[in-house]
Amino acid sequence: MQKTIPITGLELGVAKAGLKRKNKADLLLIRLKKGSQVAGVFTTNKFRAAPVEIASNNLARGGVRALVVNTGVANAGTGKVGLSDAKKVCEKVGNMLKINTTEVLPFSTGVIMERLPAAQIIEALPNAVDDLREDNWFRASEAILTTDTVTKSVSMQIEVDGTSITITGIAKGSGMIKPDMATMLSFIATDARIDATALNEMIDSVVKKSFNCITVDGDTSTNDSFLLMATCQSGNFIVKNKNEDLYEVIRNAIEKVAVKLAKMIIKDGEGATKFVTIKVKTGQDEKECRAVAFSIAESPLVKTAFYAEDPNLGRILAAIGKSDVKKLNLQNIIIHLDSMVIFENGERAVGYDEKKASTIMKKDEFCLIINLARGEEEFELWTCDMSHDYVTINSDYRS
Amino acid sequence: MQKTIPITGLELGVAKAGLKRKNKADLLLIRLKKGSQVAGVFTTNKFRAAPVEIASNNLARGGVRALVVNTGVANAGTGKVGLSDAKKVCEKVGNMLKINTTEVLPFSTGVIMERLPAAQIIEALPNAVDDLREDNWFRASEAILTTDTVTKSVSMQIEVDGTSITITGIAKGSGMIKPDMATMLSFIATDARIDATALNEMIDSVVKKSFNCITVDGDTSTNDSFLLMATCQSGNFIVKNKNEDLYEVIRNAIEKVAVKLAKMIIKDGEGATKFVTIKVKTGQDEKECRAVAFSIAESPLVKTAFYAEDPNLGRILAAIGKSDVKKLNLQNIIIHLDSMVIFENGERAVGYDEKKASTIMKKDEFCLIINLARGEEEFELWTCDMSHDYVTINSDYRS
Repeated sequence: MQKTIPITGLELGVAKAGLKRKNKADLLLIRLKKGSQVAGVFTTNKFRAAPVEIASNNLARGGVRALVVNTGVANAGTGKVGLSDAKKVCEKVGNMLKINTTEVLPFSTGVIMERLPAAQIIEALPNAVDDLREDNWFRASEAILTTDTVTKSVSMQIEVDGTSITITGIAKGSGMIKPDMATMLSFIATDARIDATALNEMIDSVVKKSFNCITVDGDTSTNDSFLLMATCQSGNFIVKNKNEDLYEVIRNAIEKVAVKLAKMIIKDGEGATKFVTIKVKTGQDEKECRAVAFSIAESPLVKTAFYAEDPNLGRILAAIGKSDVKKLNLQNIIIHLDSMVIFENGERAVGYDEKKASTIMKKDEFCLIINLARGEEEFELWTCDMSHDYVTINSDYRS
Repeated sequence: MQKTIPITGLELGVAKAGLKRKNKADLLLIRLKKGSQVAGVFTTNKFRAAPVEIASNNLARGGVRALVVNTGVANAGTGKVGLSDAKKVCEKVGNMLKINTTEVLPFSTGVIMERLPAAQIIEALPNAVDDLREDNWFRASEAILTTDTVTKSVSMQIEVDGTSITITGIAKGSGMIKPDMATMLSFIATDARIDATALNEMIDSVVKKSFNCITVDGDTSTNDSFLLMATCQSGNFIVKNKNEDLYEVIRNAIEKVAVKLAKMIIKDGEGATKFVTIKVKTGQDEKECRAVAFSIAESPLVKTAFYAEDPNLGRILAAIGKSDVKKLNLQNIIIHLDSMVIFENGERAVGYDEKKASTIMKKDEFCLIINLARGEEEFELWTCDMSHDYVTINSDYRS
């Protein structure tokens, strides 16, 4: 059990709406003090779920005071009725907490294409309200899980200008989960006083270096969301723009929390047995480094070779070659497995040792480093292997 | 055993070079009569194998008289020594057949990153020369296999202007095969008299509607090649340009042969248990139809749902939504499983019947039809599911 430190000005309450397995919490309510700032990023999938549409609209209006999250049903691919179901839930939250309906952000995760049991959620909401407490993060991290095998929470405290600033975050994964149980969700909060512009800049910068650096199977969900909340309760300073020292100190701490949560999602990936870091270095720009890294990480052939603990150079090369990067020169590319050179001068490295390579790949975690040798930029991502269990988990019938 | 009809002017000889399992042919030599026309398309993977580099260069010079194909070793990722090994083999073929080295096209398939045993191939080549015969297509189709489970050959005869024209083709698959045994290869020949310009136009048109419409796992190989050969031995006519009636009749027949071979490759895909046709219709252009079709066909989550015989609509929607197509409107999209509407008006179709959907998916072959409802264009592809065997095959250690 990870230690979760409360954030002043943010309360969490959980309840059982009967959407998940019996006797498991499946509903989370978060209440924010007036004056909190909230920023969010949502799935790039074009078919965004109903709650994602509403949450992003309400977020744009500003003045967010509450989040309501259910697991079990994703409320995606549900058309107009899905929107009205999600709005009903927001209305109930608004009534109970005496705030506007548009100050509530709804989130759902679970089975796609089934109608949200709004009545059940509405019935359970009073219990969630009664449960609202600042020290409820761990129970909240349990309530948002679907078929994740472990909870994911991180807390961090830093000292800034003589004031202690706390950051706490929770997440659920992992790629797309047990049939239709989609969605990555993460909620990170801090008590620091951060203005709206700075918070929005921060979330963009943080997500690029954390949740956008992971992939289980290349599939995006209709519900993926990441929220960054600042309750503005601590510190005499206000964090304003990205050129400020204070901004960077706090942004950096939030990034660390987000990276830890992102890595936890990969380690709990569907059927994952390996945690693999792929670093692409010396590229012309970050975009091409990212393209090469994702091409490797999302190749089923590379992922099954990771699972087999087989340093299968051919597959890695083929995956690099299939990436959408212009004029790559194989002759210049150097590949390392952890600290061992495995490929250079257009062929297997002279000192390549198959046994040593195998030993490295037998570890739970290892690193693949690709030097493109044509620039100064780099990109690092985290992924997992593709195992028999991946197929088993994803081909189990939904019932 | 498929019936393979000889092509006048094209002889095939096979031999055993000891690169594959013992007592299995692994070497194929094809000799073309002088005056034959040859066109080729090669892998789009940036890291093309040594033989692919040489074959495409020699092809561009024109006057091709022979093809030499080995299985067992792909001669990919082998640097400069790989190029010189392939050239040595071409030299030997040139000497034996009394043609220029540059009139020989080399092809290899098998393990990546290992050196080509050129000496063994050269030693076995005289046996392949002795074996040259026009009625050797079936044995040739066996000799090019790696771990394919069945041979793939198609013959077709058509009557054009009172003359019988024959088209015969062979192929090996299937996606990327048993660890490192990469490569799709196909060789199709006709005795029709087709000029160089027409043949090159033809191959581009044919490949778009056949081999470029299949995917096993989205991974491309370093060695993929498709050759179209016209020995120009039959008919009083010369097929010249694409606006001609004759051109279209022959192009169409060649396309049919190529489509049959492409489908055979999918049916023999790694661990495949289902043959799935994905038709994307009423798009604005073919490009967006193609993007949607491949996004579905290459989603591991969709592929495992096919394997599970689970009409998992959510995954199909998510895969459409992740494709790189601008401004798709979910409300307008209609999805059919064979003849049953399963999705419309932004939600599960009113008449959707889960049992019936399951029954359709229990068949060995079924069709998914996506109507984008925003244009006149369409694209059809063929793919397979992702099974436990896919992981088993691809994670078996190479030795």
